Amino acid sequence: MTVHLVGAGPGDPGLITARGLELVRSCEVLVADALVSQELVDEAPDDALIVSRVGLSQDAVTSLLVAYGAAGLDVVRLKGGDPFVFGRGAEEALALAEGGIPFEIVPGVSSIAAVPASALIPVTHRGVSDRVTIASGHGADGGEPDYAALAGAGGTLVLFMGLERLERLCDGLVDAGLPASTPAAVVSRGTLPDQESVFGTLGDIAGLAAGLESPALVIVGEVVTVGAKLAAALTASVAA
Amino acid sequence: MTVHLVGAGPGDPGLITARGLELVRSCEVLVADALVSQELVDEAPDDALIVSRVGLSQDAVTSLLVAYGAAGLDVVRLKGGDPFVFGRGAEEALALAEGGIPFEIVPGVSSIAAVPASALIPVTHRGVSDRVTIASGHGADGGEPDYAALAGAGGTLVLFMGLERLERLCDGLVDAGLPASTPAAVVSRGTLPDQESVFGTLGDIAGLAAGLESPALVIVGEVVTVGAKLAAALTASVAA
Repeated sequence: MTVHLVGAGPGDPGLITARGLELVRSCEVLVADALVSQELVDEAPDDALIVSRVGLSQDAVTSLLVAYGAAGLDVVRLKGGDPFVFGRGAEEALALAEGGIPFEIVPGVSSIAAVPASALIPVTHRGVSDRVTIASGHGADGGEPDYAALAGAGGTLVLFMGLERLERLCDGLVDAGLPASTPAAVVSRGTLPDQESVFGTLGDIAGLAAGLESPALVIVGEVVTVGAKLAAALTASVAA
Repeated sequence: MTVHLVGAGPGDPGLITARGLELVRSCEVLVADALVSQELVDEAPDDALIVSRVGLSQDAVTSLLVAYGAAGLDVVRLKGGDPFVFGRGAEEALALAEGGIPFEIVPGVSSIAAVPASALIPVTHRGVSDRVTIASGHGADGGEPDYAALAGAGGTLVLFMGLERLERLCDGLVDAGLPASTPAAVVSRGTLPDQESVFGTLGDIAGLAAGLESPALVIVGEVVTVGAKLAAALTASVAA
């Protein structure tokens, strides 16, 4: 009787961990996020109870986990990305701990590096960036992010966000001191077959990204040029 | 003929991705980092050529990858953590691209969140931290890190480092403005069976961590208290 909080990875079902897949294949209850691949949900045993998170509040999900755990069932809570990176996994873990339910955290491949990598952008690169700051594109209260802190962080910025806020975000970073010429990229649906990415600068990326779909990740910093260089070289080598 | 740059994950061999494991099991050449688990190396086919990175310079490793790739072999370059997060994977990818060798990036579970999670510390937590900055414990030139930028970043700090530099790092952060009472934790050999962690503050963590082994990760910020709370509740529930 354990509730396993398992990271499903960034989208591509092949990017779940070996341990996570093994747990999915042997669970009695699977509670899955909306963004988790159907292929992973289908890996659960035929007689497992499958619960979609769609339409459930966070409180309802947490209550379900505590109830199934207390009933002695082997539960997998399959979460997009990594449960402890913007995943609210610790909230679920706290409720389980307080309910006396044993739990385990099984990390996953987070979007924060895998999605930039899907566009060949490394979040760090020797001589280019030795630091990365990850934030959501809005503040803790749902309002504006702390542009001054983000602009002053140095190194790479990786921002989770809805694309409808992209122009305001870029303006905010430029107003806070980052040059409009700072390289920037947007990756939409990274690691999935229909992923798309655009490369530009803080000054023009919002226009270039118009029409891309959420979820999307914005990468700001000189590492973007490393990704562009890799993409060009790979295209040339495949064409050769 | 492709060179696959594959993340092996943070240490526990179960944390490689399903896709990464499949590639290891079918490769012709496996070039593995020193910190990669022997269990994963043993997954390679019996007739695969196994090359340990131990004792090889980065240039030598890169040259090997280009040579094996040019020879038309199916190569897996198995790297600790994620290849594009402090992994120098993009340097290897650039050399492959310039050599006209097709390559693929297969992300891995990075230590940056999995190691804190192994001590039950989430790098973000609603109402506590909505931002995380990841850096090495030394600057780009091998010297001192940019303490002012780190201290001003807000949110959680995750620092890769040798423990021999820990006291200097804590002093640097306090001198740059972080209170000595800021929660801090050190996790040594996270996700491995002999992992150890200590919880304290910037003021006392260096003393508490004396005797721990590298590799280690330092986590600074209020999320550390969430981890301590989870650990205490889990211990109580297991004891009950």
